[in-house]
Amino acid sequence: MTDPKSATAAFVGLGSMGYGMVQSAIRAGIDCYCRDVRPEPVERILADGAKGALSAETLIHCDVAIVTVLNAAQTKEVLFGADGIAQHLPKGAVIVSCVTMAPGVARELEVRCRDVELLFIDAPISGGSLKAASGMLSILASGSPEAFAAAGPVLDAMAETVFELGDTAGTASAMKAVNQLLCGVHIAALGEALTFAATQNIPPEQFINVISKCAGSSWMLENRGPHIVAGDYTPHSAVNIWLKDLEIAGTLAEQAGASTPLMIAALDQFKAAADAGLGGEDDAAVVKIYAEAAGVTLPGTKE
Amino acid sequence: MTDPKSATAAFVGLGSMGYGMVQSAIRAGIDCYCRDVRPEPVERILADGAKGALSAETLIHCDVAIVTVLNAAQTKEVLFGADGIAQHLPKGAVIVSCVTMAPGVARELEVRCRDVELLFIDAPISGGSLKAASGMLSILASGSPEAFAAAGPVLDAMAETVFELGDTAGTASAMKAVNQLLCGVHIAALGEALTFAATQNIPPEQFINVISKCAGSSWMLENRGPHIVAGDYTPHSAVNIWLKDLEIAGTLAEQAGASTPLMIAALDQFKAAADAGLGGEDDAAVVKIYAEAAGVTLPGTKE
Repeated sequence: MTDPKSATAAFVGLGSMGYGMVQSAIRAGIDCYCRDVRPEPVERILADGAKGALSAETLIHCDVAIVTVLNAAQTKEVLFGADGIAQHLPKGAVIVSCVTMAPGVARELEVRCRDVELLFIDAPISGGSLKAASGMLSILASGSPEAFAAAGPVLDAMAETVFELGDTAGTASAMKAVNQLLCGVHIAALGEALTFAATQNIPPEQFINVISKCAGSSWMLENRGPHIVAGDYTPHSAVNIWLKDLEIAGTLAEQAGASTPLMIAALDQFKAAADAGLGGEDDAAVVKIYAEAAGVTLPGTKE
Repeated sequence: MTDPKSATAAFVGLGSMGYGMVQSAIRAGIDCYCRDVRPEPVERILADGAKGALSAETLIHCDVAIVTVLNAAQTKEVLFGADGIAQHLPKGAVIVSCVTMAPGVARELEVRCRDVELLFIDAPISGGSLKAASGMLSILASGSPEAFAAAGPVLDAMAETVFELGDTAGTASAMKAVNQLLCGVHIAALGEALTFAATQNIPPEQFINVISKCAGSSWMLENRGPHIVAGDYTPHSAVNIWLKDLEIAGTLAEQAGASTPLMIAALDQFKAAADAGLGGEDDAAVVKIYAEAAGVTLPGTKE
């Protein structure tokens, strides 16, 4: 399989990342069959050009199955649960697992797939929902050469860059944990610095305009800063995601003897945000914890 | 004064930033007179096209004096000490103060300059030594409209962007403190994540290549990461700088009631690096504290 136009792909999970990835696959000419626990995004993606809903009958035709659910437990259920997709996929099909999980769990899933003659790519993603929808994700991927050969065109349809990091599952998940450590620290640091700036009579918009051109910038500052300036906490990636992802990174680092004082300080802020009822808001809402402590009023909040 | 070719500028301090700034000014056609406590960089900059060494006689001809020494105490000495330049500059000349200092100190210097009929721009810089040498700095600037009018062409010669942040000294220094908080956190986070990656068998070079394309990237990661990959800790900006700059930011934040847990965690790492004798090395050397704790061997260090 080399031409994406001859590929047929199953997608499980139509959240902010998964939905955009299907859109990119459709644009590349891939036949897409989709499933989500909610009916609404399935109906919407069918209207957007997906071939059909995912079922035992349609799974038989899928060469590749992309899983973009919330966590490792959901991934296991999707693959090997009572109505798991593994039992319906044709032999030799590839599972592309995009969920952030511990490397050990990714390796375990690879072995279980091999046992039922399926290929597996550990393929966590980075880049946010806009890049998912434009086919410009970074995909951190590790798996067997056979799995890459079979899934390559579908991965390429969704990604600006596919980093092939190794020939077994786990390596990509480890890289994702490292990336998430940085992302979590940078989001919390954005909240810390933006609030500090506000106490110095530097408004959020000026802070973002200036610092994004200075050495203090980060991908997260440029991406999440405008959410705070607009006072818009519609979740692209929610506060609760960081409780999960930094827990995975923290456990892995602790097992390896790596010290992570900045990550722990960042996690404390996300925990405080979740405790304050902000768990479902956009992760930029961690700034509200800083702002409240300093008595700073943010855009979009009442005086 | 609108044409830089008719401007004459004094430069005090030829460190990694100041030296490059003079080079950019020379390229723009500005007559540059230079001073440093060390004779070597003065000789070198004269060979590079500076007009002469700075003295009581040459100061009389300078419209603008750019101060790029180490700290506020040195700046005060340069301006108002026994052989201070303020007494020799013509009335109406502009002091451009590029040193990172507390906003209150910058305001104090502005007042003292006004008392002797000199203009003052609070003008901390961001961008690193390469951008200084290529005239592509970001200059965070605040001061009176008269000061900007007089110093504008010289600032433009050294900067990609001059952010005019307000009409009195202090605002720019506050923005610089905010920027430094982020820079310090991002450098320490780079060390934390790179070491964590190494414990997962992800080598530093692969870490930088991949993460710089992912959401975990930062200006500091892209700029300092290659130093670690090369094992080259020649100081562009030294560990000791962060003890000073984060102290300034921390004091200011504390006075304003802003909480800075990530900055404090980062400062702890820089203090540990200085305690380990790394204060004069490039600030990327903070990674060595993480690496030693985790038993990780970095490029360029012995097994």
